[in-house]
Amino acid sequence: MFVQKHIFHTPKLDLDIAKSVPVTVGYETYGHLNPTRDNAILICHPFSANGHAAGRYSADDPSPGWWDSLIGPGKAFDTDRFFVIAVDSLCNLSTHHPMVVTTGPATINPETGRPYGADFPQITMRDNVRLQHQLIRTLGIERLAAVAGPGTGGFQALEWAVTYPDMVARVIAVASAHQAPPVFSLAVCQAGIDAVIADPAYKGGEYYDSEPPVEGLARALFLLSTLTYSDAWIADRWERKTAKGSMHPRSDREGRFAFQDGMEQLAREKAREVDANHFVYSARAALLHDIGYGNRGIEVAAQIIKAKLLLVPVTGDLLFPVEASRQLADLINQHGGRAEVVPLEAGNGHASALQDCLWLTEPLTRFLRCEEMH
Amino acid sequence: MFVQKHIFHTPKLDLDIAKSVPVTVGYETYGHLNPTRDNAILICHPFSANGHAAGRYSADDPSPGWWDSLIGPGKAFDTDRFFVIAVDSLCNLSTHHPMVVTTGPATINPETGRPYGADFPQITMRDNVRLQHQLIRTLGIERLAAVAGPGTGGFQALEWAVTYPDMVARVIAVASAHQAPPVFSLAVCQAGIDAVIADPAYKGGEYYDSEPPVEGLARALFLLSTLTYSDAWIADRWERKTAKGSMHPRSDREGRFAFQDGMEQLAREKAREVDANHFVYSARAALLHDIGYGNRGIEVAAQIIKAKLLLVPVTGDLLFPVEASRQLADLINQHGGRAEVVPLEAGNGHASALQDCLWLTEPLTRFLRCEEMH
Repeated sequence: MFVQKHIFHTPKLDLDIAKSVPVTVGYETYGHLNPTRDNAILICHPFSANGHAAGRYSADDPSPGWWDSLIGPGKAFDTDRFFVIAVDSLCNLSTHHPMVVTTGPATINPETGRPYGADFPQITMRDNVRLQHQLIRTLGIERLAAVAGPGTGGFQALEWAVTYPDMVARVIAVASAHQAPPVFSLAVCQAGIDAVIADPAYKGGEYYDSEPPVEGLARALFLLSTLTYSDAWIADRWERKTAKGSMHPRSDREGRFAFQDGMEQLAREKAREVDANHFVYSARAALLHDIGYGNRGIEVAAQIIKAKLLLVPVTGDLLFPVEASRQLADLINQHGGRAEVVPLEAGNGHASALQDCLWLTEPLTRFLRCEEMH
Repeated sequence: MFVQKHIFHTPKLDLDIAKSVPVTVGYETYGHLNPTRDNAILICHPFSANGHAAGRYSADDPSPGWWDSLIGPGKAFDTDRFFVIAVDSLCNLSTHHPMVVTTGPATINPETGRPYGADFPQITMRDNVRLQHQLIRTLGIERLAAVAGPGTGGFQALEWAVTYPDMVARVIAVASAHQAPPVFSLAVCQAGIDAVIADPAYKGGEYYDSEPPVEGLARALFLLSTLTYSDAWIADRWERKTAKGSMHPRSDREGRFAFQDGMEQLAREKAREVDANHFVYSARAALLHDIGYGNRGIEVAAQIIKAKLLLVPVTGDLLFPVEASRQLADLINQHGGRAEVVPLEAGNGHASALQDCLWLTEPLTRFLRCEEMH
């Protein structure tokens, strides 16, 4: 499946915190919108990904979109049946990726001709949802067949259910939660933010005239990946092996384990395409996530929801315990709502939401097929 | 129970990595050594604690030692029956605590008259065990009735079983493991080290003539506590409440959650008594822990062990999964050894090893009572 990146622009996106801003973001679509315009599914991407959810840009594109196993003809999100939309987030991490279009602190402020820097307002997950809503309406869609996403993509899917309850029929949140659970999830986000801010090159976010804080950023990305990737995944690759070209860490002070080099290299590679401010803003948006905020708390928010929910927590996910999904489902079902919890036991913790996503085919297909939940 | 700190000095402690050093450390004893000198139990302290395991120093001492609920007359480690010893570790974190005596980079190098700084050799858990061994022998003890400890204290207890297999009858490791499990445990240690090293004031460990890197150190301690303390413990205290005197984080960019202020304050208080190098050395010693190292791997190491083992992993402990204890027990029992796994389900993850230690009374009492394991 070959795909293209499109551009969406709005002169005015109202933000949760403070003022509105003009926004330009990229998006992709897979499949076709039917004449009744009721077959659209919005896919929200997780923290470090972007709106390239499926397909390849060309024949020599080395890797497909991040949920390619689930999106396409005959797949769980069947593009023979559904019109699938995926949007680059506000303050997307991969600011310097050539196929990502985002708006955030690294964007040129039209009023000054220079990057916004710290003048850009803090964004929230709900702001992303408002942006997606504008795009959907521009495409002529009044109601979504479903909104789905893993991790912070699931945050947004759940925000859709409370922010536009009449505009979404089904919501799927994988390895996600209705709020960033205290304290591990909040602490991981904050630790990443602190690592960037601690780099003297960060200069309070005003580094666009100087060397960017790549060291702090690489440290933050290393931190997030080592603390949230599954042990199994890393253990399979590196176990406690000594890094190549290094003495054993036990026999030499400079000695390093392979996982350190391996994960650091991945973090450094990723850091090249990431803007430090965008990381900080996105991490803060993640820790601020709470569908109860502005809705008089989770219990009231749960009653606002009209969509059918499929919650797929992953066993061993340190960020989002299975219990959090059960709590939300209980709150919804107590009030006559329709929420189902189907835990995924794929062995890779949080990372299973992407790495083992083929396992989702069966529950997703079933959830998207049935007209009424039993 | 009132207790005293004693001093042990050895002119020469052989270290795992490189040279030997003269060492002075503090230790405490509770109860009395019997005439046959076979009732001694060594208690090894966890990462951020010290050799003050039980009792109070005076009537107005506000808090007792860290395992006081378990050590004393009629308690699990019954001082009417056992002679209990607890030793301050090498490179103990609480270098500046008035009742802690330790040797490490902050110690004056007798050859130069200045702190060792980065000249101090990296230490290992096994070095602590060798030091404890020297002390034990000086006290006239040929064989220990037991060695026990939580967290990195359990690391040392397990090291005892492979380093001096004929000198220890029973080993108890709580919320611990035979090696720092890849990758979460290793990553948490490394993240803490990186946070200290990233502070420009650290200067590669040579900061004794200038302001110490308190910012980086506080960040490291914050990181370790937020990532390893139980969610339940923190959630009970702070949930997602807004910090006192702060706007809600969602409505104000400077807004903070209460857990951030709370955990940061705890980290800053702790940082006052911690030497940054000692933190870095201890964290590296933790991540280097591996009873298989130098013993041709875990499988061979498991066969060296002659002691009876009681492994008490804690459910929900992010650092040391229950599965790791089961793996070690299986390896030992396959070769005719005697290892028992009794998981603790106290609800506070890793922190339960101290916070909920009263729950250990029953299994410890039983384990220390029976002459033969059934």
